Amino acid sequence: MIVNAAGRKLPETIGGQKVEPFMGAFATPPRKKRLAPKLSYVKPGEDKLMSLDEAVMKYVKDGMTISFHHHLRDGDYLVNQVLEMVSTLGIKDVVLASTALFPVHEPVVRHLMDGTVRRVEGSMNGPVGRACSFGHMKEIATLRDHGGRGAAVEMGDLPIDVAFIAAPTADDYGNCNGVHGKSACGPLGYSYPDSLYAKKVIAVTDNLVEYPVTPMSIHQTHVDHVAEVETIGNPEQIVSGTTKVTKSPTNLQIAEYVVETMDALGIISEGASIQAGAGGISLSVTSQMGDLLEDRHIVGGFGLGGVTQYLVDMLHRGVIKKILDAQCFDLTAVQSLRDDPDHAEINIIYSSPYNKGSVYNKLDAAFLGATEVDLDFNVNVNTHSDGLLLHGIGGHQGPAACAKVTFITVPLYRKRIPVIRDRVTTISTPGEVIDVIATEYGIAVNPRRKDILKKVENTKIPVLTIEELKKEAYDLCGEPELPDTTDDIVAVIQWRDGTILDTVKKVVEK
Amino acid sequence: MIVNAAGRKLPETIGGQKVEPFMGAFATPPRKKRLAPKLSYVKPGEDKLMSLDEAVMKYVKDGMTISFHHHLRDGDYLVNQVLEMVSTLGIKDVVLASTALFPVHEPVVRHLMDGTVRRVEGSMNGPVGRACSFGHMKEIATLRDHGGRGAAVEMGDLPIDVAFIAAPTADDYGNCNGVHGKSACGPLGYSYPDSLYAKKVIAVTDNLVEYPVTPMSIHQTHVDHVAEVETIGNPEQIVSGTTKVTKSPTNLQIAEYVVETMDALGIISEGASIQAGAGGISLSVTSQMGDLLEDRHIVGGFGLGGVTQYLVDMLHRGVIKKILDAQCFDLTAVQSLRDDPDHAEINIIYSSPYNKGSVYNKLDAAFLGATEVDLDFNVNVNTHSDGLLLHGIGGHQGPAACAKVTFITVPLYRKRIPVIRDRVTTISTPGEVIDVIATEYGIAVNPRRKDILKKVENTKIPVLTIEELKKEAYDLCGEPELPDTTDDIVAVIQWRDGTILDTVKKVVEK
Repeated sequence: MIVNAAGRKLPETIGGQKVEPFMGAFATPPRKKRLAPKLSYVKPGEDKLMSLDEAVMKYVKDGMTISFHHHLRDGDYLVNQVLEMVSTLGIKDVVLASTALFPVHEPVVRHLMDGTVRRVEGSMNGPVGRACSFGHMKEIATLRDHGGRGAAVEMGDLPIDVAFIAAPTADDYGNCNGVHGKSACGPLGYSYPDSLYAKKVIAVTDNLVEYPVTPMSIHQTHVDHVAEVETIGNPEQIVSGTTKVTKSPTNLQIAEYVVETMDALGIISEGASIQAGAGGISLSVTSQMGDLLEDRHIVGGFGLGGVTQYLVDMLHRGVIKKILDAQCFDLTAVQSLRDDPDHAEINIIYSSPYNKGSVYNKLDAAFLGATEVDLDFNVNVNTHSDGLLLHGIGGHQGPAACAKVTFITVPLYRKRIPVIRDRVTTISTPGEVIDVIATEYGIAVNPRRKDILKKVENTKIPVLTIEELKKEAYDLCGEPELPDTTDDIVAVIQWRDGTILDTVKKVVEK
Repeated sequence: MIVNAAGRKLPETIGGQKVEPFMGAFATPPRKKRLAPKLSYVKPGEDKLMSLDEAVMKYVKDGMTISFHHHLRDGDYLVNQVLEMVSTLGIKDVVLASTALFPVHEPVVRHLMDGTVRRVEGSMNGPVGRACSFGHMKEIATLRDHGGRGAAVEMGDLPIDVAFIAAPTADDYGNCNGVHGKSACGPLGYSYPDSLYAKKVIAVTDNLVEYPVTPMSIHQTHVDHVAEVETIGNPEQIVSGTTKVTKSPTNLQIAEYVVETMDALGIISEGASIQAGAGGISLSVTSQMGDLLEDRHIVGGFGLGGVTQYLVDMLHRGVIKKILDAQCFDLTAVQSLRDDPDHAEINIIYSSPYNKGSVYNKLDAAFLGATEVDLDFNVNVNTHSDGLLLHGIGGHQGPAACAKVTFITVPLYRKRIPVIRDRVTTISTPGEVIDVIATEYGIAVNPRRKDILKKVENTKIPVLTIEELKKEAYDLCGEPELPDTTDDIVAVIQWRDGTILDTVKKVVEK
């Protein structure tokens, strides 16, 4: 066994691969070159249109890796559609490299069982993660954060045979965007690296329009074929998520502590830039911050999203100057991306650690959620306390690693189970990069950040130690039970640089 | 000697390199993969700002290839500025890979003489080409068309050590665009492949603004350093060119024949797309075509440019739907690129033959100029009849190769020297891809295009053979003199796929 820099014990090899352990947030420099895809040659008059059936039949073979983006979120139809075709053709053992899977992708579980899919590399939210937890995946899953996945595709750690790109609008030559069409979802940036590096790239659209599509989020120069289908998604479920400000007094209290701490740290200031997520607490922080900026006649910098109506509202009120958009969480955001020149799409290579400067490096603050936090400030966003793998890493690691101040916004407990605890079930993001834990009881500051501690000590914000928060939680809820897991590894959690941060163990099915 | 598919004799090797002869417009498939640049790692807090002096001193070494774009055209200051620094540092033998050089770059001639620059790879307009013609370059120059250069950078045929990108607007992390700032020039797409594949990328700006710059024509993820300078160019000369409709009766007659021929061929029609250049005849064709579309209540497709006020006017009048913009020729075009959502920037990889479908493949018609045309329909745009290399290939080959119909618009003679002649001094674009020669005396149709001949035979357009046009020219001007050249090769003309189309011979200096 080896022990990584986050203190997790790891076997020497996992799934036959030598384990490269996590060495620290910025300790592992890039070891590889980018992939060098073959050049191709489409002559004048050659047609790129092809039915989806034909494309699957022609290009997908046993054992291949096929990829998808998750901009359509829980409204996506394409993953299920393609896997059904793959399964019907009797193709086996594909690696499913969707950037994320949602409850709508429950049929994937069947394809895990029948041998169509041997492994998932990507975020798993809901049923597929549950099936993985119970050991229903032939091989070990790999979870990466969004930017880390981009880097893995660039480096060839995640080589893609066929990329399927659900395109709310496309022309017959493969220029695509996500801001027009009945299935509009905003950016298409999660697929951008796939379009550059996959061996074959198939754009799949339910809105085939006259050439040329503008704006061009995905470029014709990288697309092999365009397939037209009836519908790529369910508009009512696309860009669904937690998209309303919280009304829970607990969560409002947490949001208030975050905003007060940001203020004490001087982050409510001219040009300050933030990463806001879609959770109720994040939205409340965003909203409160907007009000404060407006009251004080201060203009912040850019907001990075996961974009919601609340961030768009800040742009429209003039309290931030720009929005950089990697993903839309509601239709207001989609519309704004389409119409506001200061709301710009970025591709996910902007989030990759292995490039000439991630967008996260420019963040003053990030507010992120968690399922669990431990005494070392390690954060779990993947598993629940019963050990079940129910969430992806999403965009958690990058902002946490790079923002000047990273807040984790959590209640002390949920359903009488402590959120703050001795040891997280899974480390999704190491405590090394976490600065402030904000709860309804007050905040705990990572002792590494003496600068922050100093600035909050004479404020009205209740500042506790993480041990005190944990004690409070355990006093209220009792000592949490350990998950009923075996020693079998079902998934690995990669740090954004590709090293192994933690493993997820098989849960005993009851 | 070998004879290529355009009938030109070539030595087996040129400058020590084995000659790959031109085999036909689409005969040579790509042989290579894209380059795979190293991944780098810019951590939070690391600064990219660096003075231009420092960047040159740190990164440019003897023998290296340095690159530039020519979006600032005859107003560019950056090439001279950098070369002066290189020369002062005593660095020798660099390869200058500017996408194009203009009269403003006359100081390059001195750097050729003093050993600072050993070779140019790129278009040479004016004094540098003249110096090359007279044998003042240590090594043989390589000329490519814009898209071919993009492909050469992608494939590693033109590996770049340091790319300098003149950026009318940039932030401190290297996001750049050309639509804002005092030196606004429109797109920055000529530098796009350089930004992806050069070993070091330096953005140089005279308008350093708050992060993040949007739109992002060049991405922070590819930029190593940002250098701020007083000025990157002379705004009065940026986007200068022939940007007024011709008033010459000869040229107007030529334009009329083109438009009448387009009409006879059914190109003045719903959705038809054109490539328009900046010459007076091209502009007149554009303008006349716009009027015709409007009169007939027809809406064309996209216009590809070299964009001018005349194309923008067509967009604003609603007679075309979109503009795809690789380069701006006037300030109206720059403004429209900034403000019109249907006017979109494309990077030069869209013009490359070696990708999944060039934008040129979608053209219905292209109108291009020439210095000479011969009986095989070969076109010269590089040399004058005295043999002097005074122009680049520019964007000539791609549209000619791919558009459904390619027109060459030329007067029968210039300054009493026949333009239509037995044999062009230099083949810039092979007759194989040229369809119609339009002169003030009428048109000649390439005999390969029986379909076109058939459609024009019963119209009022005077249709002649190319031999008849040539005879007319020779009758008027006499037999042209041969250029006074030696057997020494000073430059090679590459076809867009990287094969050798022709060579340029040394001119005897008088």
